[in-house]
Amino acid sequence: MRIKVINPNTSASMTALIDHAATSAASPDCLVETVRSAMGPESIESHYDEALSVPGLLAEIAAERFDGYVIACFGDPGLDAAREIADGPVVGIAEAAMRTAAYLGRGFSVVTTLERTNSRTWELAERYGVSRFCLGVSACDIPVLEVEAALDEVALACQKAVATDRSDVVVLGCAGMTAHCAPISERIGVPVIDGVQAAVLQVESLIRMGLSTSSLGEFAPPPPKSYTGLLAQFRTDRP
Amino acid sequence: MRIKVINPNTSASMTALIDHAATSAASPDCLVETVRSAMGPESIESHYDEALSVPGLLAEIAAERFDGYVIACFGDPGLDAAREIADGPVVGIAEAAMRTAAYLGRGFSVVTTLERTNSRTWELAERYGVSRFCLGVSACDIPVLEVEAALDEVALACQKAVATDRSDVVVLGCAGMTAHCAPISERIGVPVIDGVQAAVLQVESLIRMGLSTSSLGEFAPPPPKSYTGLLAQFRTDRP
Amino acid sequence: MRIKVINPNTSASMTALIDHAATSAASPDCLVETVRSAMGPESIESHYDEALSVPGLLAEIAAERFDGYVIACFGDPGLDAAREIADGPVVGIAEAAMRTAAYLGRGFSVVTTLERTNSRTWELAERYGVSRFCLGVSACDIPVLEVEAALDEVALACQKAVATDRSDVVVLGCAGMTAHCAPISERIGVPVIDGVQAAVLQVESLIRMGLSTSSLGEFAPPPPKSYTGLLAQFRTDRP
Amino acid sequence: MRIKVINPNTSASMTALIDHAATSAASPDCLVETVRSAMGPESIESHYDEALSVPGLLAEIAAERFDGYVIACFGDPGLDAAREIADGPVVGIAEAAMRTAAYLGRGFSVVTTLERTNSRTWELAERYGVSRFCLGVSACDIPVLEVEAALDEVALACQKAVATDRSDVVVLGCAGMTAHCAPISERIGVPVIDGVQAAVLQVESLIRMGLSTSSLGEFAPPPPKSYTGLLAQFRTDRP
Amino acid sequence: MRIKVINPNTSASMTALIDHAATSAASPDCLVETVRSAMGPESIESHYDEALSVPGLLAEIAAERFDGYVIACFGDPGLDAAREIADGPVVGIAEAAMRTAAYLGRGFSVVTTLERTNSRTWELAERYGVSRFCLGVSACDIPVLEVEAALDEVALACQKAVATDRSDVVVLGCAGMTAHCAPISERIGVPVIDGVQAAVLQVESLIRMGLSTSSLGEFAPPPPKSYTGLLAQFRTDRP
Amino acid sequence: MRIKVINPNTSASMTALIDHAATSAASPDCLVETVRSAMGPESIESHYDEALSVPGLLAEIAAERFDGYVIACFGDPGLDAAREIADGPVVGIAEAAMRTAAYLGRGFSVVTTLERTNSRTWELAERYGVSRFCLGVSACDIPVLEVEAALDEVALACQKAVATDRSDVVVLGCAGMTAHCAPISERIGVPVIDGVQAAVLQVESLIRMGLSTSSLGEFAPPPPKSYTGLLAQFRTDRP
Repeated sequence: MRIKVINPNTSASMTALIDHAATSAASPDCLVETVRSAMGPESIESHYDEALSVPGLLAEIAAERFDGYVIACFGDPGLDAAREIADGPVVGIAEAAMRTAAYLGRGFSVVTTLERTNSRTWELAERYGVSRFCLGVSACDIPVLEVEAALDEVALACQKAVATDRSDVVVLGCAGMTAHCAPISERIGVPVIDGVQAAVLQVESLIRMGLSTSSLGEFAPPPPKSYTGLLAQFRTDRP
Repeated sequence: MRIKVINPNTSASMTALIDHAATSAASPDCLVETVRSAMGPESIESHYDEALSVPGLLAEIAAERFDGYVIACFGDPGLDAAREIADGPVVGIAEAAMRTAAYLGRGFSVVTTLERTNSRTWELAERYGVSRFCLGVSACDIPVLEVEAALDEVALACQKAVATDRSDVVVLGCAGMTAHCAPISERIGVPVIDGVQAAVLQVESLIRMGLSTSSLGEFAPPPPKSYTGLLAQFRTDRP
Repeated sequence: MRIKVINPNTSASMTALIDHAATSAASPDCLVETVRSAMGPESIESHYDEALSVPGLLAEIAAERFDGYVIACFGDPGLDAAREIADGPVVGIAEAAMRTAAYLGRGFSVVTTLERTNSRTWELAERYGVSRFCLGVSACDIPVLEVEAALDEVALACQKAVATDRSDVVVLGCAGMTAHCAPISERIGVPVIDGVQAAVLQVESLIRMGLSTSSLGEFAPPPPKSYTGLLAQFRTDRP
Repeated sequence: MRIKVINPNTSASMTALIDHAATSAASPDCLVETVRSAMGPESIESHYDEALSVPGLLAEIAAERFDGYVIACFGDPGLDAAREIADGPVVGIAEAAMRTAAYLGRGFSVVTTLERTNSRTWELAERYGVSRFCLGVSACDIPVLEVEAALDEVALACQKAVATDRSDVVVLGCAGMTAHCAPISERIGVPVIDGVQAAVLQVESLIRMGLSTSSLGEFAPPPPKSYTGLLAQFRTDRP
Repeated sequence: MRIKVINPNTSASMTALIDHAATSAASPDCLVETVRSAMGPESIESHYDEALSVPGLLAEIAAERFDGYVIACFGDPGLDAAREIADGPVVGIAEAAMRTAAYLGRGFSVVTTLERTNSRTWELAERYGVSRFCLGVSACDIPVLEVEAALDEVALACQKAVATDRSDVVVLGCAGMTAHCAPISERIGVPVIDGVQAAVLQVESLIRMGLSTSSLGEFAPPPPKSYTGLLAQFRTDRP
Repeated sequence: MRIKVINPNTSASMTALIDHAATSAASPDCLVETVRSAMGPESIESHYDEALSVPGLLAEIAAERFDGYVIACFGDPGLDAAREIADGPVVGIAEAAMRTAAYLGRGFSVVTTLERTNSRTWELAERYGVSRFCLGVSACDIPVLEVEAALDEVALACQKAVATDRSDVVVLGCAGMTAHCAPISERIGVPVIDGVQAAVLQVESLIRMGLSTSSLGEFAPPPPKSYTGLLAQFRTDRP
């Protein structure tokens, strides 16, 4: 079983972190390959960054056939498009983390990096059907590329979120926080969820059950089309 | 890793089916033990049956320590109570099936046994946050204990549901349909989800991530209490 | 007209309180009989307690034919199952209290006993369609069996809730608070609703109009079934 | 106990029907006085009619002190304004009928007169929190003033609605249908609810519990104001 | 292009303010005529006031044919009825202001006059589909007729609302605040929306596109009817 | 006043159609410039197409300063990102069309091109707060680039949608249908809305009121970032 984990930003150090989490979580019979996009922003902190990260992500999805795919950015950029072109199931870390949290308690808090992305998280929560479990979204106000070195600040933000939101579970709202998952859970005494692990295990489960994206209707392969300009490469990249 | 799968009704033949599905789905390093309740209705087809199935189910949860638990009836009876008293995570097959479906398409159809239980399914869909993905619930009008022998009728009901609901995924709405999952998927060409497999793999994933029900707040162990009458046994059963 | 009010816990003193409220509220031509369950927890303060209270409650519903029934615990345990087997209408005190509140102002606060049950109240509010009127649920943190002696604390919690939630009506969230209804309303100057009175009068009204639970579909009498173990008695108890 | 039932249209024959239903439903110790508006449309079949019925209705509310009031038109015109100026509780027949239905089954159908008013019913259902119970609204396409003579057509529309909506309860969507309630219920075998009876009994119950509209906030008596033109009379009419 | 702007209260000074805002906002080829109701309350601060303002408003709608109409009170009184009888499109200032705000940011705060009207604003927000954008409604506690002289207090309330609600846009919740729009926006640095301008421009846009209220179904001209009492005049007034 | 209308696909003929509609709708003092993306798919008929259209669209937004912008594709691709980087207001044709429809009737039908995009329309309807007005979405099953020549088929689909959905307004769900707006409205007798015109007039109105996207919070200019690979050009393109 081979799973491709794609970091849709171009940071090497965050990709290494993600790879560590993904590989540790996966079962022994599951091979994880973690890559970063060849084109796109170095980190994703705005709608603009997110939009520009998608072509690079889709190129990675289309590049080679795996049994399943993980999109390792908490905004789940390009998820619908990826499902149209991928051969196996595709899971975003935000959807996996938030749905996993729903099995563990009455409601969760999401702790993100910059406050300007909080509304995006609420939007995803609604779209994934978990808004009734999402009791709060709060930012620790640390940029994405600095969050991996900020365990204490993130832990504090998690503790505060649980108290303020009256939640009983925490969801880490950035792939860059993946290494903080275990230590924070230990410190604050509630389940803490890292989307990278949750998504890898979710894709594994789908593959074990022989399940993939339905090809009936909305997520059928897209109609063939010619692409102009810089994106002309996408034409032949498509599987 | 040891997972206990509990069939909250007392039918031996359905329990054997569930055991087969659960054991097949689990990873090699995961030991599944499937049991049926020692007290309760022979099948669950009404609110009354469901209510009377819960004490037996809770006795099984409390009986011995496992790493995780699956409630193998599509009504997910006793789920909240089970979470209060279990040491590890508890997952119901309805929640696992319906949330799994949400990774695979735009929306799913649930096919159940008797129509009188359809509203209960809608209620669960809403509670689990998947009502936006649940495009229809329909019954094949076959009693629970006869559904394992009714592949053709169930397959037909699934096919009809996909066409009527304009859905792209099917969820089997009874543990007794577990063996029909693969053949129906092959026949009708869309992903078909069996909650028993989905729940076993979900519990496995939670255990792998070291996650269990939060003990902060609502799902903390219940306050000690004396119980009168037939239920007096429950006092000492509790862990 | 004969109405049976069932306290699904086994506390004699709370049952006496409930009986007093129920009898006082009923019209002269309405005979109220208040009982407590013969089996079950002494008080209901968790999902576990609630689940274990249901068989005893259902035994009381099935025991003898009345014109209508009230379930006198704010979690409305076993309501759906009771409706399937009862000959007359069945009303829970939570649904009656919260719907009554909706006639009296813009929105209500519910004041409960222990905080761990607050989410259950929200869940009921949603299910009964009153979540748009429910502006807050707060606990006075007094166990169920001590709340009847805690008028001052409950009154204070009500006053605080009205200010915090900007509500204009209060709903008492425990049958054990029934005697506090009139004194608290006088103290804080807003309508305060006791579910026991509200439910008794609601059942009375339904009986006067000749209305009972629909027997078409979901709440039709449950299919006959054999029950194993301790619950085998339920087989013959059913009407 | 004195209850005033106000028909906000000016039809004498419909007022007689309403009076009959209200008087029959009320308890022996409850005196019902039914009136029709002195100014307004002869029947209410549009937003325009409804808007123009409100001043006459408010004049009736303000005219003399009763223990409680019923607004006997299924659009519940002027309900909020009436609550601001009335001394006792005010209940509309639509809210009473639809909330009563929620005690009796999984979901109800409303059968109205003209289709152009259906959306108004949906709007009320949402506002009263019963949209989850309202499974359908359909019109029998008979004008308000002719509906009292159209038992067969209304019965047929009810029967069809139950089948189409898969509902298990019927709500009659016009005060002019009040006499059809019992015969239709007998014919089609499901509970049928007449809002006039439901509202009268609801007001009675509120009065018995000593409850009235909260005067804290939104429904406090309106600030004194001068009124120009035809409506100048309203200044001194106010209590 | 001729647009009639109707102030449904009878205050001359507020009407002058509204006229100034409406005229300034309109395009050169658009003639605005602003009137106040000939009958009704001098200001609208309760459900009672609002109900009594509607007949006067409808008389203005019916009086003479314009290309479009604006209802210049933030409660949008009589909007549905006006749409049934008007020849051209009718827009309320609350719907125009709140929908305009939805183009400009993540969410808006509404600042109103008296707190007792706040719930009415929430109700409109829900009805117009903007409740997901409406992050807060707060009152500056100044009566309608004094608000035009209270720039500083309103500005302060706006600033506080943005901070408290974490909103990024402000909607002025009273036609009497129309002149405060520009100065407050300058002071607090976020977009501030005056419904009078927004509604005038919205009606203009509809007229330019040749669009008016659909006459199919709910908003078709109301069935002819006789009106009794003071309102008898409405019979012949109707177009 | 200068407005830029951007067709995010690369079809010249559709761009000409859009330009005609936009120019005709705009007021005399408003200069419209219509362009097509320099990179991207020739038409947008899948999530994949939509994702790949966004970089080209953002390049057009960033290219030169206008007073306002219209995104002329019914999926409103890149709308949030565009708002972050644009100097003036940005309006999508789907949001403008659907919100405009909400002023004109009880509910609208959207008629789109290919069925696979219907769910995207529902998603937008929910996001824009118009799902309560959106009574149906149906496809005429004609590819985007052929729809401009298919007046009869589109008209038929509109007529059918109004009957099926019981709606009273139609929204054309593709910029390629812009020329069909007037003829279809005439044929079927209900208001028909073309998003291109609606969006141009909405941007005009916002500019006249001096309103633009709030720069407080979510839509503030994105943090500066380096971009790798093909997208590196975006770095210097940003304003």
